[in-house]
Amino acid sequence: MEYQFSDRVKSLKPSAIREILKNSADPSVIPLSAGNPAPDAFPAEAINRISAELLQNTPIEALQYSITEGYVPLRQHLTSYMKEKHHVGGENDDILITSGAQQVMDLLTKALLNEGDTVLCEAPSFIGSLNTFRSYRAKLKGIPMEEDGINIHALENALNTEKNIKYLYTIPNFQNPSGITMSLEKRKKVYELCRDHGVLILEDNPYGDLRFAGENIPAIKSFDEEGIVMYAGSFSKVVSPGMRIGYAIGPKAVIQKMVVCKQGEDVHSNIWAQIVCHRFMTQYDYEAHLRRLREIYARKSQILLQAMEEHLAPLVTWSKFQGGLFAWCTLPETIDMLAFVKKAMERKVCVVPGTAFLTDENAPCSSFRINFSTPTDEQLVKGIQILGGTAKEMNCK
Amino acid sequence: MEYQFSDRVKSLKPSAIREILKNSADPSVIPLSAGNPAPDAFPAEAINRISAELLQNTPIEALQYSITEGYVPLRQHLTSYMKEKHHVGGENDDILITSGAQQVMDLLTKALLNEGDTVLCEAPSFIGSLNTFRSYRAKLKGIPMEEDGINIHALENALNTEKNIKYLYTIPNFQNPSGITMSLEKRKKVYELCRDHGVLILEDNPYGDLRFAGENIPAIKSFDEEGIVMYAGSFSKVVSPGMRIGYAIGPKAVIQKMVVCKQGEDVHSNIWAQIVCHRFMTQYDYEAHLRRLREIYARKSQILLQAMEEHLAPLVTWSKFQGGLFAWCTLPETIDMLAFVKKAMERKVCVVPGTAFLTDENAPCSSFRINFSTPTDEQLVKGIQILGGTAKEMNCK
Repeated sequence: MEYQFSDRVKSLKPSAIREILKNSADPSVIPLSAGNPAPDAFPAEAINRISAELLQNTPIEALQYSITEGYVPLRQHLTSYMKEKHHVGGENDDILITSGAQQVMDLLTKALLNEGDTVLCEAPSFIGSLNTFRSYRAKLKGIPMEEDGINIHALENALNTEKNIKYLYTIPNFQNPSGITMSLEKRKKVYELCRDHGVLILEDNPYGDLRFAGENIPAIKSFDEEGIVMYAGSFSKVVSPGMRIGYAIGPKAVIQKMVVCKQGEDVHSNIWAQIVCHRFMTQYDYEAHLRRLREIYARKSQILLQAMEEHLAPLVTWSKFQGGLFAWCTLPETIDMLAFVKKAMERKVCVVPGTAFLTDENAPCSSFRINFSTPTDEQLVKGIQILGGTAKEMNCK
Repeated sequence: MEYQFSDRVKSLKPSAIREILKNSADPSVIPLSAGNPAPDAFPAEAINRISAELLQNTPIEALQYSITEGYVPLRQHLTSYMKEKHHVGGENDDILITSGAQQVMDLLTKALLNEGDTVLCEAPSFIGSLNTFRSYRAKLKGIPMEEDGINIHALENALNTEKNIKYLYTIPNFQNPSGITMSLEKRKKVYELCRDHGVLILEDNPYGDLRFAGENIPAIKSFDEEGIVMYAGSFSKVVSPGMRIGYAIGPKAVIQKMVVCKQGEDVHSNIWAQIVCHRFMTQYDYEAHLRRLREIYARKSQILLQAMEEHLAPLVTWSKFQGGLFAWCTLPETIDMLAFVKKAMERKVCVVPGTAFLTDENAPCSSFRINFSTPTDEQLVKGIQILGGTAKEMNCK
């Protein structure tokens, strides 16, 4: 039989990252391409204890159907935690627990976007989210990044000229893939511009707790007096991505529509994992856990930086990063980026070509993304060494 | 700010069942409205043991990111299990693990349907799936049900007259809400008709293992030589709905598109739960577990039938059911169904009005759905007694 697919999927391609991840399952490959938390970052013992107690004492609570909005104690705790610690969420906001933060991107898009409507996004930006927007046939308009975040003039210009803009998608902290953090000044300016243009902001903050240098900068959501910011949070980088638990904090009216959309997608998120997240946050020293994570990533990033200084500089440059999981490297004009990534793969080092993160994958790009949380220390050093050797070799030709 | 929602959600309403479930959390209400597995049906001890061993020995496997297609050993085991036991799945099929079977309905619709395309469905049918189809702006065409399944003449007529039909949605075993099982003859006829019209079949089988009377009837998918059937299976009724693990078995080309759609929705399903399902199926006596479930539901259904004979008959009638979780009751013309359901709710007995399961919620309907798996034995008897009293009272007026 010949299958007739919908217009929306005809143009969709599998995520390049996911495709590469599959190959990187080959244990002989050095995985600088993934975005996995470091194995020692998981609070496995605590999860085991919580889970055992839960399944021993109140198994039905963990195994039965639950409600779409999410586990009430988790929603309540997150609401007060995010308000007190980050000034995120106010009286007119509500919270929805999702199946990973990816589902926040999906549900907001489903609730707001008609085919052909515009989404503004940083360029480069997280390919997973871009593909979600594409699956609703969004018109993606990329706004170039600078060292302190999105280019404000380009944003203003896009807000003035693009039609049917539904929201701006931004990852203000240690952006994926660029590692860039948006300055406080720019966050305020972004908020004001979007507010004045009646455009929502989708603020995706999966890495915010993983800052290992510099000072915390308030979330854009913390300025939100007018109900224009949807904040996406996640347990993937701080507890476990395998559990698939994220959350959305945003205007009640929008959350309500997202709940209806979620009913149709997966009814509710895994309730066992929701309870575990709640108990881990409330029965354990969560702040000490976050400090431990920051130490892990500070150490790994130092190993990367040292290896890059030794093997990549000055030929290959990189953006400054103060947290997160990624470094964004740029090749000199003398080296073709895609050829470089391919050559590295032949040498069993896997990085992600920067084009994967652009709204137009065919646009010119001389950058690639390195992840430093997945590989072991030895893999990290060896991988950078091979990348450096490859760059030097290709530069001489 | 005034929010501009997408056309697709403007018309969506929260699922009536979910809304009623929320009220039924009131412990003084007798919940004949839900669709929850019986609390004693959960293999809680086995899950606890599997989970403890998993988190003890290989925690990273359970907590780290995984691949969109699903946990490979679970996919492999399900593939051979469904093939050997049910003749479901062939050489040209593939399997995708989903976040509950609801996500199968979502992903297939996302992959196939353009706005305005037609979905044929049984009338009545499962409201959760109907709402999923609606969220993609499907045109729903309901085909009346008979005691042995869908009305074949009406189906043939719809296949001949409706435009842009993408698939037929059917629950052949112990259908939700009607409890009806499609006969073997009709299954073959449905397959042939759809094949001849080039229309896919979405066969949803969440209750198939819960047969407590009569003989098993082969799945429509077991006839599938031409790759026209997408089969949706679920662990929700046989292991745990809180885990949100389901699966799709269908033509490779279609599964491939569904994988791409799933990447954008939730990346992958909770991997811990996938591993638990795999180990429960392979390390425990799964068939003995299913036998135990059938005994539980046979017993509960007997309690219901006896209470209905005593308190509802002959005023209220019901469709024959040989498995599943539901009984479909019909009131005499003298009683207004919605007024009856409302009156029962005032008396703290919650059932679902039949209109919730129609493609047009305003169509006339004198039926309501009873669930017998969620309430305790005492609640079940007392609930039916109250329903019977209410019906007699309203009949006299």
